[in-house]
Amino acid sequence: MKQITEGELKSASLEQLKTYCGSLREEIFRTVSVCGGHLSSNLGTVELTVALHRVFDFPKDKLIFDVGHQCYTHKLLSGRANVFHTLRKRGGISGFPKRSESEYDCYDTGHAGTAISAALGFAKARDLKGENYHVIALVGDGSFNNGLVYEALNSIKILGSRVLIVLNDNGMSISPTVGGMHELLGELKGQPPLENIKLFERFGLTYRGVVNGNDLSELLPALEEAKEELSRGSVLLHVTTKKGQGYSFCESAPTETHGVSPAPGRKEYNQALGEELCALAKGHPEIVAVTAAMTDSLGLRPFFEQFPERAFDVGICEEHASVLCASMAAGGMKPYYAIFSTFLERAFDEIIHDICAQNLPVTLCIDRAGVSGADGETHQGVFDLSFLSFVPNLTVAIPKDIGEFRSMLRASVSHRGPLAIRYPREGNEGEIAEVEIGKFEVLHSTMSGIVLLAAGERCLALAERIRKSALDEGMDVGLVNARFLRPLDEVLLRSLPQRTLITLEDNALIGGLGDAVARFYRLHGIEKNVVSFGFSDCFLPHGEPQELLRDFGLGEGPILDAIRSAYACR
Amino acid sequence: MKQITEGELKSASLEQLKTYCGSLREEIFRTVSVCGGHLSSNLGTVELTVALHRVFDFPKDKLIFDVGHQCYTHKLLSGRANVFHTLRKRGGISGFPKRSESEYDCYDTGHAGTAISAALGFAKARDLKGENYHVIALVGDGSFNNGLVYEALNSIKILGSRVLIVLNDNGMSISPTVGGMHELLGELKGQPPLENIKLFERFGLTYRGVVNGNDLSELLPALEEAKEELSRGSVLLHVTTKKGQGYSFCESAPTETHGVSPAPGRKEYNQALGEELCALAKGHPEIVAVTAAMTDSLGLRPFFEQFPERAFDVGICEEHASVLCASMAAGGMKPYYAIFSTFLERAFDEIIHDICAQNLPVTLCIDRAGVSGADGETHQGVFDLSFLSFVPNLTVAIPKDIGEFRSMLRASVSHRGPLAIRYPREGNEGEIAEVEIGKFEVLHSTMSGIVLLAAGERCLALAERIRKSALDEGMDVGLVNARFLRPLDEVLLRSLPQRTLITLEDNALIGGLGDAVARFYRLHGIEKNVVSFGFSDCFLPHGEPQELLRDFGLGEGPILDAIRSAYACR
Repeated sequence: MKQITEGELKSASLEQLKTYCGSLREEIFRTVSVCGGHLSSNLGTVELTVALHRVFDFPKDKLIFDVGHQCYTHKLLSGRANVFHTLRKRGGISGFPKRSESEYDCYDTGHAGTAISAALGFAKARDLKGENYHVIALVGDGSFNNGLVYEALNSIKILGSRVLIVLNDNGMSISPTVGGMHELLGELKGQPPLENIKLFERFGLTYRGVVNGNDLSELLPALEEAKEELSRGSVLLHVTTKKGQGYSFCESAPTETHGVSPAPGRKEYNQALGEELCALAKGHPEIVAVTAAMTDSLGLRPFFEQFPERAFDVGICEEHASVLCASMAAGGMKPYYAIFSTFLERAFDEIIHDICAQNLPVTLCIDRAGVSGADGETHQGVFDLSFLSFVPNLTVAIPKDIGEFRSMLRASVSHRGPLAIRYPREGNEGEIAEVEIGKFEVLHSTMSGIVLLAAGERCLALAERIRKSALDEGMDVGLVNARFLRPLDEVLLRSLPQRTLITLEDNALIGGLGDAVARFYRLHGIEKNVVSFGFSDCFLPHGEPQELLRDFGLGEGPILDAIRSAYACR
Repeated sequence: MKQITEGELKSASLEQLKTYCGSLREEIFRTVSVCGGHLSSNLGTVELTVALHRVFDFPKDKLIFDVGHQCYTHKLLSGRANVFHTLRKRGGISGFPKRSESEYDCYDTGHAGTAISAALGFAKARDLKGENYHVIALVGDGSFNNGLVYEALNSIKILGSRVLIVLNDNGMSISPTVGGMHELLGELKGQPPLENIKLFERFGLTYRGVVNGNDLSELLPALEEAKEELSRGSVLLHVTTKKGQGYSFCESAPTETHGVSPAPGRKEYNQALGEELCALAKGHPEIVAVTAAMTDSLGLRPFFEQFPERAFDVGICEEHASVLCASMAAGGMKPYYAIFSTFLERAFDEIIHDICAQNLPVTLCIDRAGVSGADGETHQGVFDLSFLSFVPNLTVAIPKDIGEFRSMLRASVSHRGPLAIRYPREGNEGEIAEVEIGKFEVLHSTMSGIVLLAAGERCLALAERIRKSALDEGMDVGLVNARFLRPLDEVLLRSLPQRTLITLEDNALIGGLGDAVARFYRLHGIEKNVVSFGFSDCFLPHGEPQELLRDFGLGEGPILDAIRSAYACR
């Protein structure tokens, strides 16, 4: 679409603004249909973003998006209309705010709950430097369950710097919003009880609302008033929007259309998770499932339907969900906690302090592990092997396909300690064969000239392609499914006769499988040359997983070169 | 002291109970004076714990301590009076709740904010299994600032299982409690405004209070009522106690006597932090300091006094503190975030997502790194090198003494990216010599038969002792101060002529310096034999640091053996 300039936006009539909103909505719909991305949340916030750009002066003023998935209108309004068709494509613009992309993006986000903290930090810096600008945090009601939001609210009075918090209340995170804070916000939408308003005052906020965030005639004066009020103190403006606004199929199915992915094709691991947990739960009344606001994305819908009393969605509360699992396990249950790889970083301390230090039988089902593609830096699950590799008592499993994932889930029921299973979004169904904890699987004889140890479906597929290329060159290459990071299959590792081994993993090279295998040999004084391939020491941008593998450390060429050179000196 | 039996406690008169409290208080004071530990908080909660043991039936009922540092009376009342003199000593009882120690300790804690989540997990397990017991979370008001507490409160209605939360309000965490929630609680202690009480109701809690927690005649009936109320729903009982109750020097100085350490003797790194930051801040108006409720323990008191407008204590909010630092840096400031090593685990996602992904110039000052001794598993800072080793953009420094720490702080001012400096509590002053980022220091010539690479004061001292022993045996051993984990000193590593190198670090062996050095050589195809010493793959119990080093992977004997064997085959 044609760029709407700042001048046009500032001088437009209400009717013109509405027309702009229509064009923006069409552009978002068209682009997301092609590029994938977050549809409903962006359709819901078109008017709100237009109004913010009308009332405030970006980039002088600072707009911080919580999570950041709802920034499309902002990108279209800040000089990126002509490149919007490159959304989420390699080399194109990101689906999240990126400081590196535009001065209009002042703070990068991707995970929930950071925006109010970040707004307070900017406001404090502004005040200390004697600068003069406004800081706005745009936060969804889903994030209001998150502990980090509360920590930030709690410190508004301590910090004493003025910010505007726009609460975008659509009643949804990825799943419908739940919990005490949600009820409190819900009451405000009826007859606002005085005590709810006073609550925000207690935290140093003037409450303003409720405003229809899809109606510019309500929104613009409300934002002007809030801006005026900002000269006296911090303000919370409570805005309601409709997720998917303007597209009826999105409005009626906001969960399914939160993120739309183009032509999935292959099977998803999450479906297997739901199926297996439901089957296992029938015979095991101790099994419970926990999620932090992502029931559907993690495949837990069937479990929630069949075992509602044993299924818990606690909202975007990754830490609380972990402690809940640990304590339910201490109380005699067998909890399964399903979560995306990078969101698990939020529960890192609880994995150590609550689950593993007490050696409790909690199973972490880690979805979107490895490079996850188009969402970019904050969603690339390439650190989990690294941050789980050194946690005592923890077993870490990496299935080769969906069938093996099913087997691992079945084996997990009788496993007495903490277990993490990490897997990508999509894969092949494969076969269901029994898996013994800590045992690798030989896929092509290790009595070969050289051996590849590969972890996970993506790297095993890569290894298989490379193996065939090598065979074409007359090199005989063995292949091992290295399906456990902890414990390693020490018997197999000791049995390998080759001098050089090559490891492949779709994780950061630092701290993953390659390091673990090399460490094993080092500690046992076995002389081996372990050549490792994994992701480079950088944050991976958005792009196709295969491109990212190729360009950030797992290219076929370099791996084949390593084989050639090892084969020559074997 | 003589064990007070359950029978005696249940049948005692109020006067007898008061006498018991006096004896317990004396025993705690006597023991902490010898063994170290948390004095004021335990003196403050004697009556409260006695009352809980009188009213409830442990271990059938479950008592979960938040943080857990205030469990001494509980230990004395649950069969551990005869071993209480072994408090915090190697092989003796822990200063925190430990499931492995007694069935009366149902859930291990050490970090703040987990107790309400844990209580809800137990209560849910109880209900699902059709069992019948009460679950009580004992939580200090300091923890009420923590996001995890809020996440748990938010989910009480979702989970629908009944718990009793005893809010132990002494107006303190380690530092005085701050923030919006603190003000709200403060109001309840005056004329409770209806809306504050309604707030708790909104979250599914019946509010009861305020009760004087040092007065058994108020406390016992209040607990009986709360227990009765539990048959209908969850209850929050608001109790005020006086930290240090009964010992006037503790009452008047609760911050200084929160943890009392026996005969410190050596200098503390935290004092240098305060001195250097104050000196640097004079010439650098962009410098700000942030802490999560530990101003004094981290040495920041002088900074808070000299630069109050640039010093922020946000309460026990490790995550929020990190985002605040990231965003202040994005806004042009130079933040220093001081924190204990294991508490930094709470901010792991924010280190990645907010600080390092945006490559912002935040300096993490990580105190109590390495084995920290008597506090045990939850306080041993032996994972930080592992969880920082793979974070892109981050520089990780490990000073050899306080002087070098000062130099690193001075160098940090002009460092443009994120920097972590990790150090133990105590050390030698040493000299102040300029430090170049990423450069190791050769302490004894590396043109020797074998070379030790050691990181941090404790391991350098160990290495020096070993070097001398080796010299006595006629072996010539070089020594390098490996003061950067990221980046490594690649020039120096390439220059080492020896075939075998030995690394020492007071961090988990998995994922630390040894792995990093070995990885460097592997990735560059340089054949080296890297023999690494660090902590074993387990949680380290409480004990003297030197004992822990000896028994969990850093014994002089095995290291000397490794030198002998490497020397023989050099």
